Amino acid sequence: MVATAPFLARFRHPAQVVAAGFSFAIGIGTALLSLPIATAGGESAGWVTALFTAASAVCVTGLVVVDTDTHWSVFGEVVIAGLAQVGGLGIMTMATVFMLLVSGRLGLRARIATQAETKTLSMGDVRRLVLKLVVFSLVCEVITAAVLAGRFLIGYGESFGRALYLGGFHAVMAFNSAGFTLWPDSLIRFVADPWICLTIATAAIVGGLGFPVVFELARHWRHPRKWSVLTRVTVMVTVILLVVGTLVFLVTEWQNPKTLGALDDSDKLLAAFFTAVMPRSAGFNTLDISQMYPSSWLVTDLLMFIGGGSAGTAGGIKVTTFGMLAFIIWAELRGESRVNIGHRRLPEATQRQVITITVMGLMLVAFSTYVLLAMTPHGLDQVLFEVVSAFGTAGLSTGITASLGPAGHVLLTVLMFIGRIGPLTLGSALALNRRARHYELPEERVIVG
Amino acid sequence: MVATAPFLARFRHPAQVVAAGFSFAIGIGTALLSLPIATAGGESAGWVTALFTAASAVCVTGLVVVDTDTHWSVFGEVVIAGLAQVGGLGIMTMATVFMLLVSGRLGLRARIATQAETKTLSMGDVRRLVLKLVVFSLVCEVITAAVLAGRFLIGYGESFGRALYLGGFHAVMAFNSAGFTLWPDSLIRFVADPWICLTIATAAIVGGLGFPVVFELARHWRHPRKWSVLTRVTVMVTVILLVVGTLVFLVTEWQNPKTLGALDDSDKLLAAFFTAVMPRSAGFNTLDISQMYPSSWLVTDLLMFIGGGSAGTAGGIKVTTFGMLAFIIWAELRGESRVNIGHRRLPEATQRQVITITVMGLMLVAFSTYVLLAMTPHGLDQVLFEVVSAFGTAGLSTGITASLGPAGHVLLTVLMFIGRIGPLTLGSALALNRRARHYELPEERVIVG
Ligand SMILES: [K+]
Ligand SMILES: [K+]
Repeated sequence: MVATAPFLARFRHPAQVVAAGFSFAIGIGTALLSLPIATAGGESAGWVTALFTAASAVCVTGLVVVDTDTHWSVFGEVVIAGLAQVGGLGIMTMATVFMLLVSGRLGLRARIATQAETKTLSMGDVRRLVLKLVVFSLVCEVITAAVLAGRFLIGYGESFGRALYLGGFHAVMAFNSAGFTLWPDSLIRFVADPWICLTIATAAIVGGLGFPVVFELARHWRHPRKWSVLTRVTVMVTVILLVVGTLVFLVTEWQNPKTLGALDDSDKLLAAFFTAVMPRSAGFNTLDISQMYPSSWLVTDLLMFIGGGSAGTAGGIKVTTFGMLAFIIWAELRGESRVNIGHRRLPEATQRQVITITVMGLMLVAFSTYVLLAMTPHGLDQVLFEVVSAFGTAGLSTGITASLGPAGHVLLTVLMFIGRIGPLTLGSALALNRRARHYELPEERVIVG
Repeated sequence: MVATAPFLARFRHPAQVVAAGFSFAIGIGTALLSLPIATAGGESAGWVTALFTAASAVCVTGLVVVDTDTHWSVFGEVVIAGLAQVGGLGIMTMATVFMLLVSGRLGLRARIATQAETKTLSMGDVRRLVLKLVVFSLVCEVITAAVLAGRFLIGYGESFGRALYLGGFHAVMAFNSAGFTLWPDSLIRFVADPWICLTIATAAIVGGLGFPVVFELARHWRHPRKWSVLTRVTVMVTVILLVVGTLVFLVTEWQNPKTLGALDDSDKLLAAFFTAVMPRSAGFNTLDISQMYPSSWLVTDLLMFIGGGSAGTAGGIKVTTFGMLAFIIWAELRGESRVNIGHRRLPEATQRQVITITVMGLMLVAFSTYVLLAMTPHGLDQVLFEVVSAFGTAGLSTGITASLGPAGHVLLTVLMFIGRIGPLTLGSALALNRRARHYELPEERVIVG
């Protein structure tokens, strides 16, 4: 019956832990990036730029107001990569802990599973979980970095040290879906290079699926029948969004001479796939977003709003939330009195969480878009793209970020912060609240957001 | 236990009645408006223009591809007004019948109330209801027409016959929220005329509240405690949207020299109020929409998407749907296990209907916007406005309607049709489905959409 773990019980509400942790990391990051040694020019970047960049890194967004490579020193770049690593790990840890508290069904370890039966989670369990996550992250990043570094060394004639640096920096950014790059035009120069594109896309997909899902897939990938509802929905929606996204970008941009139109057919496919992966929510781009058609921007908006998997490094309302929304609507249209996903009934409480997270996300996006439209001379196309990119911590941009002014940058900073911790803490807070009141519910509970 | 009335039972599904009825009316209208005598020039308007105009009139939208006054003859204008009248009455009748079938609690007459206990509704009941609706509509329209005609006669020096014609035409358009006008710039010339503006706004609000709500208000307006959930939610959300809308337009457009900026302070208030009333979904305008800021367009989009009351002449997802969404989210954020509205519990089935109607509306708007963006050179600001205006049958436009081409006009026609009958039939079909399966549910059922 006791829902909160002993170590979390010290705080009034778990959401406070998350908010405090992220604020602290952003504060440290702002201080470090304000130092003169953080910039290439040796002068302080100013607090708005430092705050925006620190928030963008900790919230693993990747929006920038200055060119990362030329504006920051190596020290500054390492700080940014460190913040993204801390942010990505923090999100995965907290979300996974919440998920264990809520569902107690992920079976990460026998020990934790046993604990979950009595609905408590000791500090030792959390420590082991964090260790596991750190090892998992590092292994993924080292592999990604090695492949990228090899390619930079062999394919692009970089020195050994530089290739390692580039490989490491972008591996951290890809796995944590943070989206910073050391080139002013993101990854446009690599549009036709499958080594770079597929490596980064794979890292982004794995990081964005979420630790519990990856762990379950690693264990039971041959036996989809053993998958939990979380894993089924995540995998299904992810595959659908990637396939549909790739096709839509292919069709929409096929004849655009400034994007796909200039490429060979096989490169078109690679670029469209990469463009479909990145809104969930790694945030690199190999096509010039500012030259894409407004219809492609709208599709990207939708993908960025949905984002990636729960308890991973991705942002947005999450593919699980979107998937459950689809199941609810499907059941309703068929006149079913209950919503079933793979022989499990979706509890009414989860249905309300799905609506709450979706509609609050829409309202936040609409309100911020209104404010930014009123504040700047840009149109809805670009402003909505920027706002959804910040809310979904995707980090893609049509190129207006730098021109939004200090007030616009502070708004985007707030939006990245809320977008990052909002659905996560909202979802877990709602789920924990609910569970504390309805411990008798027998259904499988899926965390949303 | 038998949910469908004898006369409706002839059809496989009540939704078919609605779709067939509207299609039939649009077909007749298209034929009549294709006649050479329908145009001022004496040549056929062509089928796309005739279809678009007929659909716009029957679906009480008010979007136009040709200037109503100069393009159509008096015969054509009378056909358009007749179609709007038929469309408005048809919507009110069908929605009210569905509502009686679903809830049986509106107490229109003792007879109907008694029938509703046994969940059947005879052809005679429906006939009496239609008669009541026709009388109600005519009384409202005659009063509106009289006030408008008097003003045109006295204030603008129109001849007696012309004043009556103008008064009658615009009374029909206002009460049925159809939005056609006989001036090329809608009602911009009357921006500072409270007689015209407040009369039309009142007719639009009354028509858009919905017959059951107006009827209950007329009977129990002194005793809000006797109001049903439907009436409470409708009145509350309507008042909030009108007040907030007026304030937002005042703030946003205050300094725009091409809209509010050119007016006196009291006229600013009148114009902002009128601009806040019209998106729900009468569709007249006294400000030049094409000159409003994009931030105002976005606010108008939201208001048009929400629309007016259920079982009235307004479109959109309806203020009831929006209000229930707000109640669901509020209950969820407070950690309540049930959603209560004024001592009534909102059934889980209704909650799912609310999500289904809202999300399907959003998906339809997103999809149509994508198609229209890809098809035309316009940006998201204007395309989204046009699409939401058609879906919400609001009829406002930033001025791009005529330039969208035949394919765009057919798309908007389909959108007006789905937007008009979609939420209505979807909501009632879902509610009837549900009720047929769950006749044991004790809660008050509120129709959505
Ligand atoms: K990102
Ligand atoms: K209208």
